[in-house]
This record gives sequence, C-alpha cells and structure tokens, in this order.
Amino acid sequence: MSTDCSQAVLPAPLCGEPYLLTPGPLTTSHEVKKAMLRDWGSWDDDFRAMTAQLRRELLALVGPGGEAYDCVPVQGSGTFAVEAMLGSFLPRDGKALVLINGAYGQRIAQTLDYLGRAYAVIDKGDYLPPRGEEVARALEVDPGITHVVVVHCETSSGILNPVREIADTVAAHGRKLLVDSMSAFGAVPLEVGEIAFEAMVSSANKCIEGVPGFGFVIARKSALEEAKGVSSSLSLDVHAQWAHMEKTGQWRFTPPTHVVAAFIEALRQHREEGGVAGRLARYTANRDTLVEGMRGLGFETLLSERWLSPIIVTFFTPADPAFGFADFYARMKAKGFIIYPGKLTVVESFRVGCIGRMDPPVMRKVVAAVAECLAEMGVSSAVPPTIALEERTKLVA
Amino acid sequence: MSTDCSQAVLPAPLCGEPYLLTPGPLTTSHEVKKAMLRDWGSWDDDFRAMTAQLRRELLALVGPGGEAYDCVPVQGSGTFAVEAMLGSFLPRDGKALVLINGAYGQRIAQTLDYLGRAYAVIDKGDYLPPRGEEVARALEVDPGITHVVVVHCETSSGILNPVREIADTVAAHGRKLLVDSMSAFGAVPLEVGEIAFEAMVSSANKCIEGVPGFGFVIARKSALEEAKGVSSSLSLDVHAQWAHMEKTGQWRFTPPTHVVAAFIEALRQHREEGGVAGRLARYTANRDTLVEGMRGLGFETLLSERWLSPIIVTFFTPADPAFGFADFYARMKAKGFIIYPGKLTVVESFRVGCIGRMDPPVMRKVVAAVAECLAEMGVSSAVPPTIALEERTKLVA
Repeated sequence: MSTDCSQAVLPAPLCGEPYLLTPGPLTTSHEVKKAMLRDWGSWDDDFRAMTAQLRRELLALVGPGGEAYDCVPVQGSGTFAVEAMLGSFLPRDGKALVLINGAYGQRIAQTLDYLGRAYAVIDKGDYLPPRGEEVARALEVDPGITHVVVVHCETSSGILNPVREIADTVAAHGRKLLVDSMSAFGAVPLEVGEIAFEAMVSSANKCIEGVPGFGFVIARKSALEEAKGVSSSLSLDVHAQWAHMEKTGQWRFTPPTHVVAAFIEALRQHREEGGVAGRLARYTANRDTLVEGMRGLGFETLLSERWLSPIIVTFFTPADPAFGFADFYARMKAKGFIIYPGKLTVVESFRVGCIGRMDPPVMRKVVAAVAECLAEMGVSSAVPPTIALEERTKLVA
Repeated sequence: MSTDCSQAVLPAPLCGEPYLLTPGPLTTSHEVKKAMLRDWGSWDDDFRAMTAQLRRELLALVGPGGEAYDCVPVQGSGTFAVEAMLGSFLPRDGKALVLINGAYGQRIAQTLDYLGRAYAVIDKGDYLPPRGEEVARALEVDPGITHVVVVHCETSSGILNPVREIADTVAAHGRKLLVDSMSAFGAVPLEVGEIAFEAMVSSANKCIEGVPGFGFVIARKSALEEAKGVSSSLSLDVHAQWAHMEKTGQWRFTPPTHVVAAFIEALRQHREEGGVAGRLARYTANRDTLVEGMRGLGFETLLSERWLSPIIVTFFTPADPAFGFADFYARMKAKGFIIYPGKLTVVESFRVGCIGRMDPPVMRKVVAAVAECLAEMGVSSAVPPTIALEERTKLVA
C-alpha cells in the first residue's frame, strides 16, 4: 500500500485498508464503525429511541413541508427499498412511466415485471437525460399512467437527472412522482418544497455515509395510508412497517441493530458537516479535484459539466492498447484505491466515486495513483478512442 | 448495573452493556463486533472470497450429503429469508401444509396470504407440538398438498418441534419439506442425512452468534434450479441470487458487508467451540442452569422436559399481584439483563433466551437477578395461577 493518509483533512481508514471509490459500499469513518461495538435489544426502549431519532432526522432533510411526510426504514439493500416503494405505492391497477438512462432505471422496470404492474418506459440509452417535454408528451398520450418513476443520480453513468424539471411536469399533469434517490439523497438537495414527490428511497450506505444493511422510504402520509393492502410481499410492505412503527416504535422484524447504531453516528457527522449543503460542498470539491486531475492526465469524462454529478464520474478507457481494466484495477487496489468498472454498453469506461469519507487531498492521491499506474503499464496517452468522443456528441448540452 | 462478569468463562460484553436474553438480537462476542471495524468493497475479490467461505461453511453444517445442496444468503431479517424460501420454492400452483404452534407458524401462513399461494394449516394453538400422524392424515386427505412447512424451534413458546418425525412422514407421502430453522440451526442438528428437507432457512443473528442483517437458505440444487421464474419479488428471488452468485461470486445487490465480516468471525468461533455439538452443549447447560435456578425460586416452565428447547424458555408469570411484567423488565434491565415478554394468548408469561455469548455462570447471575427483583417488588411466591398449570396439562408428554 502506498497510500499516505497523513496529509488528509479527514481521518484515514485504518492502515492498509483501501479507500472505496465505489458507491457503495463506500468508505465510512472509524467513529461510524465503532458505533457497532455493542449489541442492542430491538425490543428495548433504548433502541426504539434510536429508531425514532433516525426517522426524525432523515425526515428533517426534506426541508419545510416535511410534516406531511413520514420516514420508514426497510431492512435489506437499497434495491429492497426500491421494490418496497414500487410494490406499496403503485396500486395494482396503476401504471408507471419509468424514465430509464442506465442500469438502475432498467432495474426499476425489471422490478415492475416481477410485481406484475403495468408500465411504459422512456429509455434514453446509456446516459442521455430524460427531459420534461418528453415526459409531458408521454403523459398526454397515455392518461392511464398514474405514477412517474425517476432515478435521481443514475450511477451507471454518474448523470444527475433533471428531477425538478420532471417533477414540475408530473405535477402539471396531475400524476404522482416516485424518486429513486439512492446515491444522491443527503448530498443533493431533495426538498419537498421544491420537488413534490409522492415517495422517495435511499439507503444507509450512500451520502449519509453509514454502513450497508437497510434503506428507507420517505413518503407522503396520505400515500402511506393509501398503501394499506397494496403490497404482495410481507417483508416489503411499507404500509405495514410504518403502521407497526407508529404503534410500537419497533421495526416489524429484527432490524440490523448494529447498522442502525452506525447510522445514528453517521447522521451526527452529517449534521456536524453542515447537513446536505456541507456534504454537497465536499463531494463537489472531490469531484472537481478528481476531474481536473484526470483531465490533466489526458482522460475524458463521458459527461459534459452540466450533467456531471458530485457522486460518481465515468471516464472513457484510454485507446492505448497497453491499457487493460483488470490490470488497472489491481494496480489501483495495490495503491489503496478500489474503483468500479463502467456500465456503458457502447464504449469501454470505468468509474470513480466521489462520495464517502474522502476529501480533496485524498482525491489528489487518487489522481497520482492513476498516473503511476499508467506509467507502470506503459500507457503513453489516456486519450479515449474516437468512437467514445463521437458517442459523447450525442449528449445535448 | 450490578452485573459482575469477572467470573464468567466467556468474555463479558463491554462494561455496562446488558446481556440480551432475547434471541435475537442476542449477545455476540467482542471479536465478532470488532470484525466490523473496516469497510469492504462488495465487488472486490477479497469480499467475494468471504462470501464463498460463508456459503461453504454453512453448507458443511448440514453434514454428509450436503453436496446435493447449496447455500444462498439473502439480505434482510430472518423473515425476509423465510418469505424468499416460500416465494421461490413453493410453485404458484403448489399448495402448502403449514404446521402452526405459535407466532412464527402464523407468520408463515400470513406470508402465503401475501404471496397468494394456496395452503392448509394444522394449528395446535399456543404450544402443542404438531405430530407425524396428524400430518399423515392431512396429506392423505388432500393430495393437492405439495409442500409441508414446519418451524424447527417455535420461539413463541420455546418448543422444539419433532422435525424428524414430521420429515419422515412427509417423505413417506412423497411430499417436500420446508423448514424454518431460524432460531435452531447451528445448535440443534439439522443434517440432510437425517432430515431430508427440500430447503431450510436461518439467519446470521441466531445460533451462529453473528449480528443481524442477513438470513440464508440451504436448499437442494434441484430445488434451486426448479425455482427459476417462480418468485414474484426481484429482491427475494432465491434462484436469481443463487445463479448470480454462482456466476460472479457476488451478491446481486449490495450486501451488508460489515455484517458478513462479523459472521465470518462468528463461524470461526462456532468451529472453535466444536461446531453444532459444542454449541448445543453450551446452550443446553445454559438452559439447565436457568431452569433449575428458576424452579428453585418457585417458577414453573410452560413446557415439560421433553419439549423444552435449549434456545428459549417460557416461564409462567407469578400469580402474586405484586408482580408486574413492565416493572420486572425494568429491574432486570437495570441489573444488566434484557428479557422478552411472553407470546401466549391464554395465560401471562415471559421468556428468557439461552443462546448468544453466555454460559452457565452468566445464567446463574440471571437467576440471582430474578431473585433480587422478586424481593424488591415484594413478590413472596413465584408460583403461577392455577389456570396456567391447568393449561399445561393439555400438553401430551
């Protein structure tokens, strides 16, 4: 490991532990993990108080107007929470319009196939953003559509979708909006006063920087009430989880108590950093440091500035035949950084996350490590193949 | 806290932390929790190796013949794994016979209601065991029944159901057996050479003494193959999780990485203690110490010796009007022990767990704490009301 964390502003992971530039799981603080060093009885008052705190503090993140909403945690990965949202809030005779521009949008459609719910799609391919006017046309054409489902930050490409524009369109057409804000919530504003969603989901192990093990739904109380009897899954019934929590203060089934304790500490650190604004500022600085450094090495980003999220960035793979992703991955790992392969179907790419317990000094080390890897591999230029640049011109700026 | 853990053979929880006599969550070792002090990339080889180890070691616990089976972990609580098993292995045109004698059997029926699967029940009430001959009659009467579902240890009462007798009956009638061995697996033998189950489930936070956050299914490979396309839930599709793990070594969706790391350490401790036999010996000694001590104070167990599990024991609440459960719970907690309320519908009771990182010296302290509580509350006799003893006579010994 050549990672020297001594100059970082944030405390580094334990010696020898790689940074996870893979949201998620992502790198969490030592204090967050230390909160897991004791056991909690889930039936006990102490743990009920933790559950109440978690719900209250998450709800506060949606800003003024949040009193019409409630927060319901759901055990499992983020995908479990997305499925719980879809299966609970989309009535069995409803119809969804799913806005797809990557793997997570596709997964929503796949989930609806499993659930046997009707849906239409707008599929923009690998990374083009769904726009308000397209959504408007789709809603005008099909009055049977009751809900629109959008991915806030599609981490397949790292694009930050224009959720406000879409929310305004959905509201203007009298339909309801469900938001998969998995990788954005907590760092990208999602306030109910600005974006009138019916329900949204995120998870413990994204921008709040907890460890993985549960997700959460924030939904209008009216939607939670209407969800009674809708779900065809006991475990993923958001109404039942909510009603039970309201009545008893407990999760219906054994919660991941240690993960919850870690999340309480993560929420404290989130507040301490200045909440959503503070976290957005650090992640944006992370991204800017990363992108500037990588461009300095000759790399090109898939997306133009306007669509770059502060969550994860996709870089085109260099055209140089000396570059191989598996080799690059192993070298980066040996230097203390774990990255992600790309998810584009047309051209080769890789992704670097900007979220988790990292700051610009760490991101400068990431860039330095990339430069070292290129030198070791004998890659003389990081410029992508022409086809990649042509592909990018499809992106309307 | 008056708990003095210095004489315990096992390391005690951190100072001031109560023992959880509530399976589960239950008390885990400090080493298990310490394994959560780092972050893991779920896509990375290191974590894939941990997943492979977890599956391999769990499978080894079902004994000779296990090569015809495979182990598939499922994110979420144990109930999520039960639902995954039911929704994946019971065909949509199949029919289950659910053997009920408590809350967990009832939950299985409720899950089948959600899933829209046909089922019949044998409901024995609060705690009477389902017997082989009743099952045989039900299977003879209804040839449409394809699967029998049984709870191994029904923790509502603490009864250890006669799973082998039931398995033999099910096999003799050519039907398939699904076992909810949530609170028993890892301490009560469940070997495929003895009990020919089609699939079983348990969870991380029971007799293996990990922390909560995932469950697991062990199923015949033939059943896993036949489960393709059966589930109506993306997240809880056991076939898809299995096929993805076989192909990539990864969980389909973000795993609770820290909980998995804790579980690997828990499995190591399980081996070190002598596997299933070693753990059964300690839990049995815990139960015997508890029951002997409590009977010495005048308490009566709901169950006779034959049906008492080494997992959790139900005691009748004393008839003395000076005894109140909420008061008793708070006093026990102040002395360092968290217990459970009862789940019987007919008479008042409470439950004390025998599983988790505890040994007979700890159980002696539990009994001593109970004696102190009775004295503080002014309870002169722990003898239950006559109705409780009459209720117990219904139990066929």
